[in-house]
Amino acid sequence: MKRPVILVTNDDGVYAPGIRHLSAIARQFGEVIVVAPDKPQSGMGHAITINSTLHLQRTHYHDVPREYSCSGTPVDCVKMAVNHLLPEKPDLVLSGINHGSNSSINVIYSGTMSAAIEGALEGCSSVGFSLCDYSIEADFTPTTPFIEKIIRYALEHPLPQGTCFNVNFPKLPAELIRGIKVVRQSKANWVERFDERQDPYGRSYYWLTGEFVNFEPKAEDTDEWALKSGYVSVVPTQVDLTAHAFINTCKTNLESTL
Amino acid sequence: MKRPVILVTNDDGVYAPGIRHLSAIARQFGEVIVVAPDKPQSGMGHAITINSTLHLQRTHYHDVPREYSCSGTPVDCVKMAVNHLLPEKPDLVLSGINHGSNSSINVIYSGTMSAAIEGALEGCSSVGFSLCDYSIEADFTPTTPFIEKIIRYALEHPLPQGTCFNVNFPKLPAELIRGIKVVRQSKANWVERFDERQDPYGRSYYWLTGEFVNFEPKAEDTDEWALKSGYVSVVPTQVDLTAHAFINTCKTNLESTL
Repeated sequence: MKRPVILVTNDDGVYAPGIRHLSAIARQFGEVIVVAPDKPQSGMGHAITINSTLHLQRTHYHDVPREYSCSGTPVDCVKMAVNHLLPEKPDLVLSGINHGSNSSINVIYSGTMSAAIEGALEGCSSVGFSLCDYSIEADFTPTTPFIEKIIRYALEHPLPQGTCFNVNFPKLPAELIRGIKVVRQSKANWVERFDERQDPYGRSYYWLTGEFVNFEPKAEDTDEWALKSGYVSVVPTQVDLTAHAFINTCKTNLESTL
Repeated sequence: MKRPVILVTNDDGVYAPGIRHLSAIARQFGEVIVVAPDKPQSGMGHAITINSTLHLQRTHYHDVPREYSCSGTPVDCVKMAVNHLLPEKPDLVLSGINHGSNSSINVIYSGTMSAAIEGALEGCSSVGFSLCDYSIEADFTPTTPFIEKIIRYALEHPLPQGTCFNVNFPKLPAELIRGIKVVRQSKANWVERFDERQDPYGRSYYWLTGEFVNFEPKAEDTDEWALKSGYVSVVPTQVDLTAHAFINTCKTNLESTL
Protein backbone atom coordinates (compact mmCIF):
# COMPACT_ATOMS: atom_id res chain seq x y z
CA MET A 1 0.00 0.00 0.00
CA LYS A 2 1.26 3.46 -0.91
CA ARG A 3 2.24 5.57 2.11
CA PRO A 4 0.22 8.77 2.49
CA VAL A 5 1.80 12.05 1.38
CA ILE A 6 1.80 14.62 4.18
CA LEU A 7 2.50 18.32 3.66
CA VAL A 8 3.81 20.13 6.74
CA THR A 9 3.86 23.93 7.02
CA ASN A 10 3.56 26.65 9.67
CA ASP A 11 3.70 30.42 10.16
CA ASP A 12 6.71 30.71 12.48
CA GLY A 13 9.09 29.81 9.65
CA VAL A 14 10.81 26.63 8.47
CA TYR A 15 13.45 26.81 11.25
CA ALA A 16 11.03 27.03 14.20
CA PRO A 17 11.22 24.22 16.81
CA GLY A 18 7.45 23.65 16.62
CA ILE A 19 7.42 22.60 12.95
CA ARG A 20 10.42 20.36 13.51
CA HIS A 21 8.53 18.53 16.25
CA LEU A 22 5.51 18.18 13.95
CA SER A 23 7.47 16.96 10.91
CA ALA A 24 9.18 14.32 13.08
CA ILE A 25 5.81 12.95 14.22
CA ALA A 26 4.35 13.12 10.71
CA ARG A 27 7.22 11.03 9.36
CA GLN A 28 5.88 7.96 11.14
CA PHE A 29 2.67 8.17 9.12
CA GLY A 30 3.82 8.88 5.58
CA GLU A 31 6.07 10.62 3.07
CA VAL A 32 6.59 14.13 4.41
CA ILE A 33 7.26 17.28 2.42
CA VAL A 34 7.90 20.48 4.37
CA VAL A 35 7.13 23.83 2.68
CA ALA A 36 7.22 26.70 5.15
CA PRO A 37 7.89 30.45 5.20
CA ASP A 38 11.50 31.62 5.16
CA LYS A 39 10.75 34.06 7.99
CA PRO A 40 8.16 34.44 10.78
CA GLN A 41 4.68 35.18 9.39
CA SER A 42 2.59 35.39 12.55
CA GLY A 43 -0.63 37.37 12.24
CA MET A 44 -0.64 37.10 8.46
CA GLY A 45 -4.16 35.65 8.40
CA HIS A 46 -5.20 34.42 4.97
CA ALA A 47 -2.84 36.78 3.12
CA ILE A 48 -1.50 35.77 -0.30
CA THR A 49 1.26 37.28 -2.41
CA ILE A 50 -0.15 38.88 -5.55
CA ASN A 51 1.80 42.12 -5.82
CA SER A 52 5.27 40.60 -5.69
CA THR A 53 7.13 37.47 -6.72
CA LEU A 54 7.67 34.25 -4.79
CA HIS A 55 10.93 32.39 -4.21
CA LEU A 56 11.59 28.80 -3.15
CA GLN A 57 14.76 27.44 -1.55
CA ARG A 58 15.77 23.87 -0.59
CA THR A 59 16.53 23.62 3.15
CA HIS A 60 17.99 20.85 5.33
CA TYR A 61 16.71 21.34 8.85
CA HIS A 62 14.07 18.61 9.03
CA ASP A 63 14.72 14.89 8.85
CA VAL A 64 12.51 14.45 5.77
CA PRO A 65 13.21 13.74 2.09
CA ARG A 66 12.10 17.15 0.75
CA GLU A 67 11.86 20.53 2.41
CA TYR A 68 11.68 24.10 1.14
CA SER A 69 11.52 27.60 2.49
CA CYS A 70 9.21 29.97 0.61
CA SER A 71 9.37 33.77 0.58
CA GLY A 72 5.57 34.03 0.85
CA THR A 73 2.86 33.63 3.45
CA PRO A 74 1.67 30.33 4.98
CA VAL A 75 -1.20 30.25 2.45
CA ASP A 76 1.30 30.76 -0.40
CA CYS A 77 3.28 27.77 0.94
CA VAL A 78 0.22 25.49 0.72
CA LYS A 79 -0.65 26.75 -2.77
CA MET A 80 2.95 26.24 -3.95
CA ALA A 81 3.16 22.74 -2.50
CA VAL A 82 -0.21 21.54 -3.78
CA ASN A 83 -0.18 23.21 -7.19
CA HIS A 84 3.51 23.33 -8.07
CA LEU A 85 5.74 20.96 -6.09
CA LEU A 86 3.55 17.88 -5.66
CA PRO A 87 2.29 15.79 -8.58
CA GLU A 88 -1.00 15.13 -6.71
CA LYS A 89 -2.90 16.57 -3.78
CA PRO A 90 -1.38 15.46 -0.46
CA ASP A 91 -3.42 13.11 1.74
CA LEU A 92 -2.96 15.39 4.72
CA VAL A 93 -1.94 19.01 5.35
CA LEU A 94 -0.52 19.75 8.82
CA SER A 95 0.29 23.25 10.05
CA GLY A 96 2.23 24.17 13.19
CA ILE A 97 3.00 23.50 15.89
CA ASN A 98 2.46 27.20 16.45
CA HIS A 99 4.35 28.91 19.24
CA GLY A 100 1.29 30.50 20.90
CA SER A 101 -2.47 30.03 21.09
CA ASN A 102 -4.79 30.08 18.08
CA SER A 103 -7.97 29.39 20.01
CA SER A 104 -11.17 31.39 19.76
CA ILE A 105 -11.07 34.46 17.50
CA ASN A 106 -7.30 34.06 17.01
CA VAL A 107 -8.20 31.56 14.29
CA ILE A 108 -8.99 34.51 12.02
CA TYR A 109 -5.61 36.26 12.43
CA SER A 110 -3.55 33.11 12.47
CA GLY A 111 -1.19 32.19 9.64
CA THR A 112 -1.04 28.66 11.07
CA MET A 113 -4.78 28.18 10.80
CA SER A 114 -5.02 29.97 7.44
CA ALA A 115 -2.64 27.37 6.04
CA ALA A 116 -4.91 24.59 7.39
CA ILE A 117 -7.99 26.36 5.98
CA GLU A 118 -6.22 26.67 2.62
CA GLY A 119 -5.53 22.92 2.78
CA ALA A 120 -9.27 22.35 3.27
CA LEU A 121 -9.99 24.65 0.29
CA GLU A 122 -7.64 22.52 -1.79
CA GLY A 123 -9.72 19.49 -0.82
CA CYS A 124 -7.23 17.95 1.64
CA SER A 125 -7.78 16.71 5.19
CA SER A 126 -6.06 19.49 7.18
CA VAL A 127 -5.15 20.21 10.78
CA GLY A 128 -3.57 23.23 12.46
CA PHE A 129 -1.76 22.67 15.79
CA SER A 130 -0.87 25.37 18.35
CA LEU A 131 0.65 25.27 21.82
CA CYS A 132 -0.42 27.97 24.31
CA ASP A 133 3.19 28.92 24.98
CA TYR A 134 4.90 31.72 23.02
CA SER A 135 8.40 30.80 24.18
CA ILE A 136 10.97 29.65 21.66
CA GLU A 137 12.01 27.17 24.41
CA ALA A 138 8.47 25.74 24.70
CA ASP A 139 8.28 22.02 25.51
CA PHE A 140 6.38 20.28 22.70
CA THR A 141 6.84 16.74 24.10
CA PRO A 142 3.43 16.54 25.85
CA THR A 143 1.66 17.18 22.52
CA THR A 144 3.07 14.05 20.81
CA PRO A 145 0.48 11.35 21.68
CA PHE A 146 -2.42 13.69 20.88
CA ILE A 147 -0.95 14.71 17.54
CA GLU A 148 -0.46 11.03 16.70
CA LYS A 149 -4.08 10.30 17.54
CA ILE A 150 -5.40 13.22 15.49
CA ILE A 151 -3.22 12.41 12.48
CA ARG A 152 -4.44 8.80 12.60
CA TYR A 153 -8.05 10.02 12.77
CA ALA A 154 -7.66 12.50 9.90
CA LEU A 155 -6.03 9.89 7.67
CA GLU A 156 -8.69 7.27 8.43
CA HIS A 157 -11.67 9.67 8.28
CA PRO A 158 -10.89 12.42 5.76
CA LEU A 159 -12.62 15.55 7.05
CA PRO A 160 -15.76 16.77 5.23
CA GLN A 161 -15.13 19.05 2.21
CA GLY A 162 -14.27 22.61 3.31
CA THR A 163 -13.54 21.63 6.92
CA CYS A 164 -10.35 21.36 8.98
CA PHE A 165 -9.36 21.05 12.65
CA ASN A 166 -8.07 23.84 14.88
CA VAL A 167 -6.15 22.04 17.65
CA ASN A 168 -4.76 23.91 20.67
CA PHE A 169 -2.69 22.44 23.50
CA PRO A 170 -2.70 23.86 27.03
CA LYS A 171 0.70 24.77 28.45
CA LEU A 172 0.85 21.83 30.84
CA PRO A 173 3.15 18.90 31.58
CA ALA A 174 1.97 15.60 30.05
CA GLU A 175 0.57 14.17 33.29
CA LEU A 176 -1.76 17.12 33.80
CA ILE A 177 -3.37 17.06 30.32
CA ARG A 178 -6.82 15.52 30.78
CA GLY A 179 -7.55 14.46 27.19
CA ILE A 180 -9.21 15.90 24.07
CA LYS A 181 -12.41 17.97 23.93
CA VAL A 182 -14.19 18.68 20.62
CA VAL A 183 -15.65 22.15 21.10
CA ARG A 184 -16.73 25.35 19.36
CA GLN A 185 -14.87 28.62 18.86
CA SER A 186 -15.42 30.80 21.94
CA LYS A 187 -16.91 34.28 21.39
CA ALA A 188 -14.11 36.65 22.27
CA ASN A 189 -12.17 39.62 20.99
CA TRP A 190 -8.99 41.60 21.48
CA VAL A 191 -9.31 45.02 23.07
CA GLU A 192 -6.46 46.88 21.43
CA ARG A 193 -4.25 49.52 22.83
CA PHE A 194 -1.86 51.37 20.53
CA ASP A 195 1.42 52.04 22.25
CA GLU A 196 2.41 55.45 20.83
CA ARG A 197 6.12 56.38 20.72
CA GLN A 198 8.25 59.09 19.14
CA ASP A 199 10.99 58.33 16.63
CA PRO A 200 14.34 60.21 16.89
CA TYR A 201 12.88 62.85 14.51
CA GLY A 202 9.83 63.57 16.69
CA ARG A 203 7.33 61.66 14.59
CA SER A 204 4.77 59.36 16.20
CA TYR A 205 4.66 55.66 15.55
CA TYR A 206 2.61 52.87 17.09
CA TRP A 207 2.86 49.29 18.32
CA LEU A 208 -0.32 47.23 18.22
CA THR A 209 -0.91 45.66 21.64
CA GLY A 210 -4.07 44.31 23.19
CA GLU A 211 -5.83 42.26 25.79
CA PHE A 212 -7.83 39.12 25.04
CA VAL A 213 -11.40 39.26 26.36
CA ASN A 214 -13.52 36.09 26.51
CA PHE A 215 -17.19 37.12 26.19
CA GLU A 216 -18.49 33.82 27.54
CA PRO A 217 -16.15 32.67 30.33
CA LYS A 218 -18.80 30.35 31.81
CA ALA A 219 -19.78 28.41 28.65
CA GLU A 220 -18.50 24.82 28.93
CA ASP A 221 -18.54 23.88 25.25
CA THR A 222 -15.86 26.29 24.01
CA ASP A 223 -12.18 26.00 23.21
CA GLU A 224 -11.27 28.59 25.86
CA TRP A 225 -13.06 26.54 28.51
CA ALA A 226 -11.41 23.28 27.37
CA LEU A 227 -7.92 24.79 27.48
CA LYS A 228 -8.49 26.39 30.91
CA SER A 229 -9.76 23.04 32.17
CA GLY A 230 -6.62 21.20 31.07
CA TYR A 231 -7.91 19.66 27.83
CA VAL A 232 -6.58 19.70 24.28
CA SER A 233 -9.22 21.65 22.28
CA VAL A 234 -10.28 20.52 18.80
CA VAL A 235 -12.56 22.92 16.89
CA PRO A 236 -13.92 21.69 13.54
CA THR A 237 -13.45 24.80 11.42
CA GLN A 238 -15.09 25.65 8.09
CA VAL A 239 -14.41 27.85 5.08
CA ASP A 240 -18.06 28.85 4.60
CA LEU A 241 -18.48 32.23 6.34
CA THR A 242 -22.19 32.59 5.46
CA ALA A 243 -24.42 33.51 8.42
CA HIS A 244 -27.13 31.19 7.11
CA ALA A 245 -29.62 31.87 9.91
CA PHE A 246 -29.63 35.58 9.06
CA ILE A 247 -30.39 35.27 5.33
CA ASN A 248 -34.17 35.23 5.60
CA THR A 249 -34.40 38.28 7.88
CA CYS A 250 -32.39 40.34 5.41
CA LYS A 251 -34.29 39.06 2.37
CA THR A 252 -37.51 40.78 3.44
CA ASN A 253 -35.86 44.14 3.97
CA LEU A 254 -33.28 44.27 1.24
CA GLU A 255 -34.70 42.41 -1.74
CA SER A 256 -37.66 44.75 -2.31
CA THR A 257 -37.19 47.16 -5.17
CA LEU A 258 -35.18 50.30 -4.50
CA MET B 1 -30.28 63.99 17.16
CA LYS B 2 -26.60 63.13 16.93
CA ARG B 3 -25.51 62.16 13.42
CA PRO B 4 -24.06 58.64 13.16
CA VAL B 5 -20.30 58.25 13.00
CA ILE B 6 -19.23 56.26 9.94
CA LEU B 7 -15.76 54.78 9.47
CA VAL B 8 -14.76 54.23 5.83
CA THR B 9 -11.81 52.05 4.85
CA ASN B 10 -10.69 49.77 2.00
CA ASP B 11 -7.80 47.64 0.79
CA ASP B 12 -6.90 49.44 -2.45
CA GLY B 13 -5.47 52.38 -0.51
CA VAL B 14 -6.75 55.79 0.55
CA TYR B 15 -6.31 57.28 -2.94
CA ALA B 16 -8.35 54.66 -4.85
CA PRO B 17 -11.41 55.91 -6.78
CA GLY B 18 -13.65 53.26 -5.15
CA ILE B 19 -13.21 54.53 -1.60
CA ARG B 20 -13.75 58.10 -2.74
CA HIS B 21 -17.09 57.13 -4.24
CA LEU B 22 -18.04 55.35 -0.99
CA SER B 23 -16.98 58.18 1.33
CA ALA B 24 -19.01 60.65 -0.75
CA ILE B 25 -22.15 58.52 -0.36
CA ALA B 26 -21.50 57.90 3.35
CA ARG B 27 -21.27 61.65 3.98
CA GLN B 28 -25.03 62.00 3.39
CA PHE B 29 -25.71 59.69 6.34
CA GLY B 30 -23.32 60.87 9.03
CA GLU B 31 -19.95 62.14 10.22
CA VAL B 32 -17.37 60.30 8.13
CA ILE B 33 -13.84 59.42 9.13
CA VAL B 34 -11.65 57.76 6.51
CA VAL B 35 -8.75 55.55 7.69
CA ALA B 36 -7.29 53.52 4.84
CA PRO B 37 -3.99 51.90 3.86
CA ASP B 38 -1.26 54.13 2.41
CA LYS B 39 -0.67 51.58 -0.39
CA PRO B 40 -2.62 48.79 -2.11
CA GLN B 41 -3.22 45.85 0.27
CA SER B 42 -5.19 43.45 -1.94
CA GLY B 43 -5.05 39.82 -0.90
CA MET B 44 -3.94 40.69 2.63
CA GLY B 45 -6.78 38.71 4.20
CA HIS B 46 -7.08 39.22 7.93
CA ALA B 47 -3.39 40.11 8.35
CA ILE B 48 -2.35 42.40 11.20
CA THR B 49 0.95 44.14 11.87
CA ILE B 50 2.64 42.71 14.95
CA ASN B 51 6.29 42.45 13.90
CA SER B 52 6.72 46.08 12.85
CA THR B 53 5.47 49.54 13.72
CA LEU B 54 2.48 51.46 12.37
CA HIS B 55 2.38 55.00 11.04
CA LEU B 56 -0.55 57.38 10.52
CA GLN B 57 -0.65 60.38 8.21
CA ARG B 58 -3.36 63.05 7.66
CA THR B 59 -4.51 63.10 4.01
CA HIS B 60 -6.77 65.43 2.03
CA TYR B 61 -8.25 63.46 -0.85
CA HIS B 62 -11.79 62.89 0.43
CA ASP B 63 -14.37 65.57 1.07
CA VAL B 64 -14.70 64.61 4.76
CA PRO B 65 -13.64 66.26 8.02
CA ARG B 66 -10.99 63.68 8.99
CA GLU B 67 -8.98 61.26 6.91
CA TYR B 68 -5.78 59.31 7.46
CA SER B 69 -3.53 56.94 5.61
CA CYS B 70 -2.10 54.10 7.69
CA SER B 71 1.02 52.07 6.94
CA GLY B 72 -0.71 48.83 7.99
CA THR B 73 -3.27 46.40 6.62
CA PRO B 74 -7.03 47.04 6.27
CA VAL B 75 -7.59 45.28 9.61
CA ASP B 76 -4.95 47.51 11.25
CA CYS B 77 -6.86 50.54 9.89
CA VAL B 78 -10.09 49.45 11.60
CA LYS B 79 -8.29 48.70 14.87
CA MET B 80 -6.52 52.09 14.78
CA ALA B 81 -9.73 53.98 14.04
CA VAL B 82 -11.87 52.21 16.63
CA ASN B 83 -9.31 51.93 19.43
CA HIS B 84 -7.11 54.97 18.92
CA LEU B 85 -8.62 57.73 16.76
CA LEU B 86 -12.30 57.65 17.73
CA PRO B 87 -13.56 58.38 21.24
CA GLU B 88 -16.35 55.77 20.82
CA LYS B 89 -17.15 52.88 18.52
CA PRO B 90 -18.47 54.12 15.15
CA ASP B 91 -22.12 53.39 14.30
CA LEU B 92 -21.13 51.90 10.97
CA VAL B 93 -17.97 50.53 9.34
CA LEU B 94 -17.90 50.59 5.53
CA SER B 95 -15.14 49.01 3.45
CA GLY B 96 -14.55 49.44 -0.28
CA ILE B 97 -15.67 49.93 -2.89
CA ASN B 98 -13.18 47.27 -3.91
CA HIS B 99 -11.87 47.29 -7.47
CA GLY B 100 -12.67 43.63 -8.20
CA SER B 101 -14.95 40.84 -6.96
CA ASN B 102 -14.98 39.54 -3.40
CA SER B 103 -17.76 37.02 -3.92
CA SER B 104 -17.64 33.37 -2.94
CA ILE B 105 -14.34 32.13 -1.49
CA ASN B 106 -12.64 35.45 -2.29
CA VAL B 107 -14.12 36.68 0.99
CA ILE B 108 -11.34 34.80 2.80
CA TYR B 109 -8.46 36.42 0.90
CA SER B 110 -9.98 39.88 0.73
CA GLY B 111 -8.57 42.81 2.65
CA THR B 112 -11.83 44.67 1.96
CA MET B 113 -13.94 42.00 3.63
CA SER B 114 -11.44 41.43 6.44
CA ALA B 115 -11.86 45.10 7.37
CA ALA B 116 -15.65 44.59 7.48
CA ILE B 117 -15.24 41.39 9.51
CA GLU B 118 -12.95 43.27 11.91
CA GLY B 119 -15.67 45.93 12.23
CA ALA B 120 -18.11 43.17 13.21
CA LEU B 121 -15.59 41.86 15.75
CA GLU B 122 -15.41 45.34 17.25
CA GLY B 123 -19.18 45.21 17.68
CA CYS B 124 -20.07 47.61 14.83
CA SER B 125 -22.58 47.20 12.00
CA SER B 126 -20.23 46.62 9.05
CA VAL B 127 -20.48 46.25 5.28
CA GLY B 128 -17.88 45.47 2.61
CA PHE B 129 -18.61 46.61 -0.98
CA SER B 130 -16.93 45.30 -4.14
CA LEU B 131 -17.49 45.91 -7.84
CA CYS B 132 -16.73 43.05 -10.25
CA ASP B 133 -14.44 45.27 -12.32
CA TYR B 134 -10.70 45.43 -11.65
CA SER B 135 -10.14 48.52 -13.78
CA ILE B 136 -8.91 51.71 -12.16
CA GLU B 137 -11.34 53.42 -14.57
CA ALA B 138 -14.32 51.36 -13.33
CA ASP B 139 -17.68 53.17 -13.29
CA PHE B 140 -19.00 53.19 -9.72
CA THR B 141 -22.11 55.29 -10.49
CA PRO B 142 -24.55 52.36 -10.85
CA THR B 143 -23.72 51.21 -7.29
CA THR B 144 -24.93 54.43 -5.63
CA PRO B 145 -28.66 53.74 -5.00
CA PHE B 146 -27.92 50.24 -3.70
CA ILE B 147 -25.21 51.46 -1.34
CA GLU B 148 -27.60 54.12 -0.04
CA LYS B 149 -30.25 51.49 0.59
CA ILE B 150 -27.85 49.15 2.38
CA ILE B 151 -26.37 51.93 4.53
CA ARG B 152 -29.88 53.00 5.54
CA TYR B 153 -30.74 49.39 6.43
CA ALA B 154 -27.55 48.82 8.43
CA LEU B 155 -28.05 52.04 10.41
CA GLU B 156 -31.71 51.26 11.15
CA HIS B 157 -31.18 47.54 11.87
CA PRO B 158 -27.71 47.07 13.38
CA LEU B 159 -26.51 43.65 12.22
CA PRO B 160 -26.41 40.80 14.77
CA GLN B 161 -23.23 40.58 16.89
CA GLY B 162 -20.37 39.02 14.91
CA THR B 163 -22.06 39.48 11.52
CA CYS B 164 -21.44 41.78 8.55
CA PHE B 165 -22.51 42.06 4.90
CA ASN B 166 -20.44 41.07 1.88
CA VAL B 167 -21.92 43.11 -1.01
CA ASN B 168 -20.81 42.58 -4.61
CA PHE B 169 -21.95 44.53 -7.67
CA PRO B 170 -22.09 43.06 -11.16
CA LYS B 171 -20.20 44.98 -13.84
CA LEU B 172 -23.32 46.32 -15.54
CA PRO B 173 -24.82 49.69 -16.47
CA ALA B 174 -27.49 50.92 -14.02
CA GLU B 175 -30.44 50.02 -16.21
CA LEU B 176 -29.39 46.36 -16.41
CA ILE B 177 -29.00 45.76 -12.65
CA ARG B 178 -32.07 43.80 -11.57
CA GLY B 179 -32.02 44.50 -7.81
CA ILE B 180 -30.58 42.96 -4.64
CA LYS B 181 -30.42 39.24 -3.77
CA VAL B 182 -29.56 38.04 -0.26
CA VAL B 183 -27.66 34.82 -0.82
CA ARG B 184 -25.03 32.45 0.54
CA GLN B 185 -21.33 32.17 -0.29
CA SER B 186 -20.94 29.89 -3.32
CA LYS B 187 -18.70 26.83 -2.94
CA ALA B 188 -15.73 27.55 -5.20
CA ASN B 189 -11.98 27.63 -5.26
CA TRP B 190 -9.01 28.96 -7.20
CA VAL B 191 -6.98 26.46 -9.20
CA GLU B 192 -3.55 27.98 -9.06
CA ARG B 193 -0.84 27.97 -11.62
CA PHE B 194 2.61 29.27 -10.70
CA ASP B 195 4.13 31.19 -13.57
CA GLU B 196 7.84 30.30 -13.26
CA ARG B 197 10.43 32.74 -14.66
CA GLN B 198 14.19 33.22 -14.46
CA ASP B 199 15.79 36.33 -12.99
CA PRO B 200 18.83 37.87 -14.78
CA TYR B 201 21.06 35.67 -12.59
CA GLY B 202 19.41 32.40 -13.65
CA ARG B 203 17.41 31.88 -10.45
CA SER B 204 13.75 30.85 -10.60
CA TYR B 205 10.96 33.00 -9.24
CA TYR B 206 7.19 32.66 -9.41
CA TRP B 207 4.03 34.67 -9.95
CA LEU B 208 0.86 33.31 -8.37
CA THR B 209 -1.90 33.08 -10.98
CA GLY B 210 -5.06 31.04 -11.00
CA GLU B 211 -8.45 30.28 -12.38
CA PHE B 212 -11.68 30.62 -10.41
CA VAL B 213 -13.78 27.45 -10.37
CA ASN B 214 -17.40 27.53 -9.17
CA PHE B 215 -18.25 24.06 -7.78
CA GLU B 216 -22.01 24.66 -7.93
CA PRO B 217 -22.76 26.66 -11.08
CA LYS B 218 -26.43 25.58 -11.06
CA ALA B 219 -27.33 26.50 -7.46
CA GLU B 220 -29.68 29.51 -7.49
CA ASP B 221 -29.16 30.72 -3.92
CA THR B 222 -25.49 31.72 -4.19
CA ASP B 223 -23.64 34.99 -4.72
CA GLU B 224 -22.06 33.72 -7.95
CA TRP B 225 -25.50 32.97 -9.37
CA ALA B 226 -26.91 36.35 -8.28
CA LEU B 227 -24.04 38.27 -9.91
CA LYS B 228 -24.25 36.25 -13.13
CA SER B 229 -28.00 36.91 -13.21
CA GLY B 230 -27.54 40.67 -12.97
CA TYR B 231 -28.26 41.12 -9.26
CA VAL B 232 -26.33 42.84 -6.49
CA SER B 233 -25.35 40.00 -4.09
CA VAL B 234 -25.55 40.45 -0.32
CA VAL B 235 -24.06 37.64 1.79
CA PRO B 236 -24.52 37.89 5.57
CA THR B 237 -21.06 36.88 6.76
CA GLN B 238 -20.00 35.73 10.23
CA VAL B 239 -16.86 35.59 12.33
CA ASP B 240 -17.66 32.19 13.86
CA LEU B 241 -15.78 29.60 11.78
CA THR B 242 -16.97 26.59 13.83
CA ALA B 243 -18.36 23.73 11.73
CA HIS B 244 -21.08 23.14 14.34
CA ALA B 245 -22.74 20.22 12.53
CA PHE B 246 -19.48 18.27 12.60
CA ILE B 247 -18.77 18.56 16.35
CA ASN B 248 -20.73 15.50 17.45
CA THR B 249 -19.22 13.15 14.86
CA CYS B 250 -15.72 14.03 16.03
CA LYS B 251 -16.59 13.83 19.71
CA THR B 252 -17.16 10.07 19.56
CA ASN B 253 -13.87 9.37 17.85
CA LEU B 254 -11.53 11.90 19.41
CA GLU B 255 -12.67 12.38 22.99
CA SER B 256 -12.02 8.80 24.11
CA THR B 257 -8.84 8.33 26.11
CA LEU B 258 -5.60 8.00 24.16
